[in-house]
Amino acid sequence: MPTRARKTPLRKTRPRAPSRPRLARPPARSRTASREKWVYLFDEGRGDMKDLLGGKGANLAEMTRIGLPVPPGFIVTTRACNAFQAEGNQFPEGLWEQELAALRTLEKRMGRTLGDPGNALLVSCRSGAKFSMPGMMDTLLNIGLNDEVAEGLVAETGDARFVYDAYRRLVQMFGTVVLGLPHEPFEHVLEEYRRQRGIQNDAALPAEDLKAITQAFQRIVREKSGRDFPKEPLEQLRLATEAVFRSWNGKRAVDYRNAAGIAHDLGTAVNIVTMVFGNRGEDSGTGVVTTRNVSTGEREMEGDYLANAQGEDVVSGTRPTLRIAALKEQHPKLHAQLERICQKLERHFRDVQDVEFTIERGKLWMLQTRDAKRTAQAAVRIAVELVRERRITRKEAVLRVKPEQVDFFLHPRFSSAEVKAARERGDLLATGLNVSPGAASGVVALDADTAERWSKEEKKAVIMVRPETKPDDVHGMLAARGILTSRGGRTSHAALVARQFGKPAVVGVSEMEVDCEKRQLTVAGRVLREGDTVSIDGTTGEVFAGRLETVIPDLSDPHLLELLKWADEFRELGVYANADYPRDAKLARELGAEGIGLCRTEHMFFETERLPRVQQMILARTDEERAETLAWLLPFQREDFLGLFRAMDGLPVTIRLIDPPLHEFLPNHDELLHDVTELETRLELLKDKPEAAGLEARLVQKRRLLEAVESMRETNPMLGLRGVRLGIHLPALVRMQVRAIFEAACQCTREGVRVFPKVMIPLIAHSNELRVEKELLEAEARDVMKEQGLEVAYQFGTMIEIPRAALTADQIAQEAEFFSFGTNDLTQTTYGISRDDAETGFLSEYLQKRILPENPFATLDQRGVGALMEMGVKLGRKTRPKLDVGICGEHGGDPKTIAFCHRIGLDYVSCSPYRVPIARLAAAHAALTS
Amino acid sequence: MPTRARKTPLRKTRPRAPSRPRLARPPARSRTASREKWVYLFDEGRGDMKDLLGGKGANLAEMTRIGLPVPPGFIVTTRACNAFQAEGNQFPEGLWEQELAALRTLEKRMGRTLGDPGNALLVSCRSGAKFSMPGMMDTLLNIGLNDEVAEGLVAETGDARFVYDAYRRLVQMFGTVVLGLPHEPFEHVLEEYRRQRGIQNDAALPAEDLKAITQAFQRIVREKSGRDFPKEPLEQLRLATEAVFRSWNGKRAVDYRNAAGIAHDLGTAVNIVTMVFGNRGEDSGTGVVTTRNVSTGEREMEGDYLANAQGEDVVSGTRPTLRIAALKEQHPKLHAQLERICQKLERHFRDVQDVEFTIERGKLWMLQTRDAKRTAQAAVRIAVELVRERRITRKEAVLRVKPEQVDFFLHPRFSSAEVKAARERGDLLATGLNVSPGAASGVVALDADTAERWSKEEKKAVIMVRPETKPDDVHGMLAARGILTSRGGRTSHAALVARQFGKPAVVGVSEMEVDCEKRQLTVAGRVLREGDTVSIDGTTGEVFAGRLETVIPDLSDPHLLELLKWADEFRELGVYANADYPRDAKLARELGAEGIGLCRTEHMFFETERLPRVQQMILARTDEERAETLAWLLPFQREDFLGLFRAMDGLPVTIRLIDPPLHEFLPNHDELLHDVTELETRLELLKDKPEAAGLEARLVQKRRLLEAVESMRETNPMLGLRGVRLGIHLPALVRMQVRAIFEAACQCTREGVRVFPKVMIPLIAHSNELRVEKELLEAEARDVMKEQGLEVAYQFGTMIEIPRAALTADQIAQEAEFFSFGTNDLTQTTYGISRDDAETGFLSEYLQKRILPENPFATLDQRGVGALMEMGVKLGRKTRPKLDVGICGEHGGDPKTIAFCHRIGLDYVSCSPYRVPIARLAAAHAALTS
Repeated sequence: MPTRARKTPLRKTRPRAPSRPRLARPPARSRTASREKWVYLFDEGRGDMKDLLGGKGANLAEMTRIGLPVPPGFIVTTRACNAFQAEGNQFPEGLWEQELAALRTLEKRMGRTLGDPGNALLVSCRSGAKFSMPGMMDTLLNIGLNDEVAEGLVAETGDARFVYDAYRRLVQMFGTVVLGLPHEPFEHVLEEYRRQRGIQNDAALPAEDLKAITQAFQRIVREKSGRDFPKEPLEQLRLATEAVFRSWNGKRAVDYRNAAGIAHDLGTAVNIVTMVFGNRGEDSGTGVVTTRNVSTGEREMEGDYLANAQGEDVVSGTRPTLRIAALKEQHPKLHAQLERICQKLERHFRDVQDVEFTIERGKLWMLQTRDAKRTAQAAVRIAVELVRERRITRKEAVLRVKPEQVDFFLHPRFSSAEVKAARERGDLLATGLNVSPGAASGVVALDADTAERWSKEEKKAVIMVRPETKPDDVHGMLAARGILTSRGGRTSHAALVARQFGKPAVVGVSEMEVDCEKRQLTVAGRVLREGDTVSIDGTTGEVFAGRLETVIPDLSDPHLLELLKWADEFRELGVYANADYPRDAKLARELGAEGIGLCRTEHMFFETERLPRVQQMILARTDEERAETLAWLLPFQREDFLGLFRAMDGLPVTIRLIDPPLHEFLPNHDELLHDVTELETRLELLKDKPEAAGLEARLVQKRRLLEAVESMRETNPMLGLRGVRLGIHLPALVRMQVRAIFEAACQCTREGVRVFPKVMIPLIAHSNELRVEKELLEAEARDVMKEQGLEVAYQFGTMIEIPRAALTADQIAQEAEFFSFGTNDLTQTTYGISRDDAETGFLSEYLQKRILPENPFATLDQRGVGALMEMGVKLGRKTRPKLDVGICGEHGGDPKTIAFCHRIGLDYVSCSPYRVPIARLAAAHAALTS
Repeated sequence: MPTRARKTPLRKTRPRAPSRPRLARPPARSRTASREKWVYLFDEGRGDMKDLLGGKGANLAEMTRIGLPVPPGFIVTTRACNAFQAEGNQFPEGLWEQELAALRTLEKRMGRTLGDPGNALLVSCRSGAKFSMPGMMDTLLNIGLNDEVAEGLVAETGDARFVYDAYRRLVQMFGTVVLGLPHEPFEHVLEEYRRQRGIQNDAALPAEDLKAITQAFQRIVREKSGRDFPKEPLEQLRLATEAVFRSWNGKRAVDYRNAAGIAHDLGTAVNIVTMVFGNRGEDSGTGVVTTRNVSTGEREMEGDYLANAQGEDVVSGTRPTLRIAALKEQHPKLHAQLERICQKLERHFRDVQDVEFTIERGKLWMLQTRDAKRTAQAAVRIAVELVRERRITRKEAVLRVKPEQVDFFLHPRFSSAEVKAARERGDLLATGLNVSPGAASGVVALDADTAERWSKEEKKAVIMVRPETKPDDVHGMLAARGILTSRGGRTSHAALVARQFGKPAVVGVSEMEVDCEKRQLTVAGRVLREGDTVSIDGTTGEVFAGRLETVIPDLSDPHLLELLKWADEFRELGVYANADYPRDAKLARELGAEGIGLCRTEHMFFETERLPRVQQMILARTDEERAETLAWLLPFQREDFLGLFRAMDGLPVTIRLIDPPLHEFLPNHDELLHDVTELETRLELLKDKPEAAGLEARLVQKRRLLEAVESMRETNPMLGLRGVRLGIHLPALVRMQVRAIFEAACQCTREGVRVFPKVMIPLIAHSNELRVEKELLEAEARDVMKEQGLEVAYQFGTMIEIPRAALTADQIAQEAEFFSFGTNDLTQTTYGISRDDAETGFLSEYLQKRILPENPFATLDQRGVGALMEMGVKLGRKTRPKLDVGICGEHGGDPKTIAFCHRIGLDYVSCSPYRVPIARLAAAHAALTS
């Protein structure tokens, strides 16, 4: 008993919640349910209410608001859907009453009544979430039909075929959508009737059949579900609303949201719309148009139209659709009205729209509008032209094109028709890692020499196929149109070189067996011999048998150039390129690069002419011998830099000193071990035979080589003698490189070329390494400039690619004049993952099992690697406030990473030349959205 | 012109410093020089003024202060030395005047005057820095002598030999020390006189010779330096003071300070002391004693004495010294006085003292006292006994023993006499990495089987020698007394196993060539055959030919046990042990471990009996085959854990699930490749011969194995498929391990043994890995407990050994109930250094070139790896405030690292059993000094 007697009557309230919420309790907001507005008439909503009304509903409301002909209707909100789930699949308080009230308004406006056989209103019930989830949730049409209403409508329209077709569809949809019955029993009935009539198409069934089918469908519903098809139209409406609500948590929808990254707590709205029919005769029809051409971006309405048909017929493709021009011929006035509406919509929504419409007996009704999906090419052209038409700003235009879409302009691709046909033929052999975009067809060549010979001498298009590639395969890769390997990951040698040279490549096709001895590949149960033709798509990772035609988009697209120019105005990050050769540098510059962020000097050592001398240098037994080979290499290296400097006249060129472990330049260990063992065995067995004579000498030579290679072998070469460690171990080598850089720089200066070399020392873990190395090398640089009587502006800096370097960046910045994040290596060490091994091994297992959300070698791991980068930038600038900081790992061309680099205050990103335009746009996005 | 005329006269001031300091400008303090006290008489100073007066000077002042017989003297301060350097090697203002004033006081006290031929005062001038730098700086004796003074002294003492010996020493020291002349010309003169007299010893030269020698020395000075030996005693004093000042920056002293880590800006004091002479007859003498025995710690004065001699004679060893007991026989009163003084000094300084004294004509003079250096054994005993004598507190006692000194008690060592003799014989073959302390002698065995056979069957002491060791060598390593390898680093397999089992080991002896075919080693130009005897000292890294006797200190030393008990009272860190076997666990517990911090389960897989089954499990082609071998392994693994749990009854046992890459369990790749190639070649050459019959089958088998090994081969196994990655890849394997752990835990519980298993999942880089693995394994654990009808307390946790784990420790702590830092791996990835390759490669080059101050695998890199650890602790405890955090890398037993672990708030350190006592003491130090 309360201590004080209450005088005022107790208000009727729900009981207080117990202190601990129980599971599945409805959320607090359901307590205010009775007061919440769950239902909006179309003329009560607006286009910016997508959270509440869903995308479809908000746009229907907006079209209504601006006076377009939309069939009257109303929307049940997404909050109602959430409340429904929260109450354990019960309508929240007040919802049904509000739905009924809205229905009454509809009936009043239409002068028709749901369930009135003399004057029946029919409605549809469709889902509509904030983000489009096409086909993922449920729809019911023709709600309001029952036997009496059907008879009444037949009387009213005189079109029994139309009425019973609508009725049987309602029953069928009710069975499958609301009750979850299988489709087959319904389809069997239709089949049977078609068979009896000897026809292919349901549309040709006469009215009596459709009526009989309707009855058959009602029997199926009764037998399979144990309940009758509800005759009461209001019950139909209520059950349809519930079905749409429930479909939000259906498996299909949940899977889709997981894949598309859509939140699960958004809920779906439900749109109840007066039915209009495009199948009421030749003055009726239905269609779908976009306000511009979404393939090319051209400014013309484009789409499909079908007379005397319903929307379903357009989608199902049972009758061939006509181009929208057909409407112009048949009903020029309606066509003109549609065009005016499209223009109004585009102006109103400030973007190209994708529109559904229906014509019922000469009256045009708009059923849906939304921003149109478009190809990359169209996206660019539309964005640029909307600016010219003063519809949107340059900023908006830049933001409307995704950086990834720019890639489209850069690579050949297979036409979709070709791909479809190849799939149908069963020519899709496998899907590997899509490491370098673009498509290519050619004959299989199983080694670099063959690839080069067939390409150069026989002028064949070649696809070079290997288990994996090595530095001495590069000449073959250059000669080939594309590269295909069975091993290796996203940053394998094949992938890196392919991206570097813009060659399409698919790697890590583990189900493909490459037999270099039998000169064949086995994949998907098929054997392809060397010389057979294959096609690879480096954008998708697909590998096809046979030749597929490629389409080459235009890189110099004027719209693209304009858009990128605007992007350059907005971005704050510099965009540099990774380029080792003058031809790459030129290309990068054409594509907009503002400098070279990474020139890998060791690539120059792999060239056929130089490699033997490089090996001799490595294996040298005396300093003199080493000095001799280095002196031989110097002019070559100088020539390399001369070319780069000339190509980048006026722009900085960042040159990384030698980085890889020495064994990469030496012959393969296992091959040598094989040869030595074989020779030893032969010598033992043939020791008294004449053949033995030559063997001994070869054995001695091979053995010496094997010993040298073994002495340089490392258990974990990635963490071994490379980078600055190599420079400290073999100072003469890096001094030669620095000499070459500065001799070239002086020569260029004399020629009038403006040079700015930035010498980059890789793999620093401790500031002492950099101090020692910089002292040595800067002295060499000064010697050269003194000899040449010239001063050249330059900087010495370092890669930050070891966690310790980032952690001690304040100390390192005392020596380094610039930083460049080498995120490939930094990812390897921060994650403890060897890129050479993991991407075709456990890392792909991790990605398949969703243990990792993304491949950290493709998209930067911001939480881990990114945290180190942020630390590195902050600590570095603590010591040297104006420290120039960039990134030159593979990630430098990835838009997500570029946004991150912008956020943590980098000065520039550097990526492969072909990704420069993408990076320019991504950098603009980063600046505009941060 | 100033705008206002000054009325007051301008004060005379030094000109204002220009705004930018020039180089070599004296520091600001020299402006106040004239007012600073540069000179302290002994009775003006105190023992705690070491900063200002140096160690020697402060102690001389202190002895004076407490009334001990110290020859009168004074000290020039270290600040004067610094001012001298700062003024460009000029005496600061006032210094010389103060020195003269102090000298006058001396003269007054002694009743003698510097330079007075009738009554001459002689003084010495010695350096004395804050920290002892023995022999690094200069000393001048007998200042005040010239021809007249010498004649006067001869007249006074009647001892011309004594006077001219002192005089020639002064001239000689003046030439070499003050003027920097070479020693040789002086030595040649002495040699010549000895030759003429036919004697060995300068002491036997007659007075006339010494006088002639003095004159000859003066000629040498004049000729070699171009200046006369200064006759004026005050000039001698001034030049001597300057020479000591200058010697602070001499190369020897600078090098010493660099090596000893002494700051260069401390400066040295200069001690000017009245000369007393121990060579004035049989009632004179000199000696050095420690107040206790510094070898054993026993409580008895100990040292050397030489009658009628000077300090130099004791040091130079020209005459054999006597035990201090000799003084007792000759002069019992003086001996008793010395003993009283020693006791007073020890009481006063609260520690054992190392004392120099001189007796001049029956009077005892104290010339120096300082804390005595002592052996580890003595340090422990002295510390404990001083507490018993109530001289110091327990805290002080604990702090007086260095943790490293405890190591002494744990390992056999060679006696110093043996080592000296072996060196003299030329038997020191090489010095490698001292990776596991202790000394051992034995016959060389070049493979594990031989080592085991010789040890077990022939009962020989064996040293196992290999290029490097592998897991299947462990049985041989266990059988051997010590391990010696030519390759590998501080954390190589050999080093890890050796430390684990407390076997002495020297690894990475790169100049030693091990030829397993010829069964011999070549080192230092000598060839040792298998079966020859070698001796290795794992404490020093030395390798000797032949047998050296070992001495085994006593581990159960009662003083040590007492000291460690006190340490346990003070420390806050727990001390756990890394132990894989019950016998290690027992040992660790005896040595004071409070739990197992790391049990490496894979070590159990390498046992001879199990390895074939483990290989079968790895190579299994079906899940059934794998399940079968796992079922076979389960009881073994359960037995392992039973033993561990029983040994650690009541204490936590941390068990790490399988960690290493699978190929470590498989046969060697190169050997297989060799065998396959050889068989292929034989088969080709012998194909029609009868021998071919058996070859085919062997080839097929070897080929299959080679293919399997190749399919698991990784470029960088350290960063590959291991740790949790392996667990996710082969879930059945880790489930078997968890089953074994919990079956054993349940069985123990039933037996009344209290168990607390902590299951540790290695190599986590992303929290998802841990979540997935923990779900799987905790389910298995619960299954077992359900089957057994028992509940066991347990935890699931992880190693933090990848930078990303430390960076995302907040996320990881959502899954992990404890952290253990695996600093071996964490150092590898943070530094980007492969421990397998680096320690005998570029890392040792770095250490030699001083690019790195320390080997980061021996002492934790606090700046880099430590920063990540600190982050890991903070982030982890942000999520889980009571998170239990430890360290189980090799560093866990390193005192510096332990101090760091204490500072960042770890709960415990875990180290190999033999380092547990060291860690206990180090943890106490950390707690007492933080």
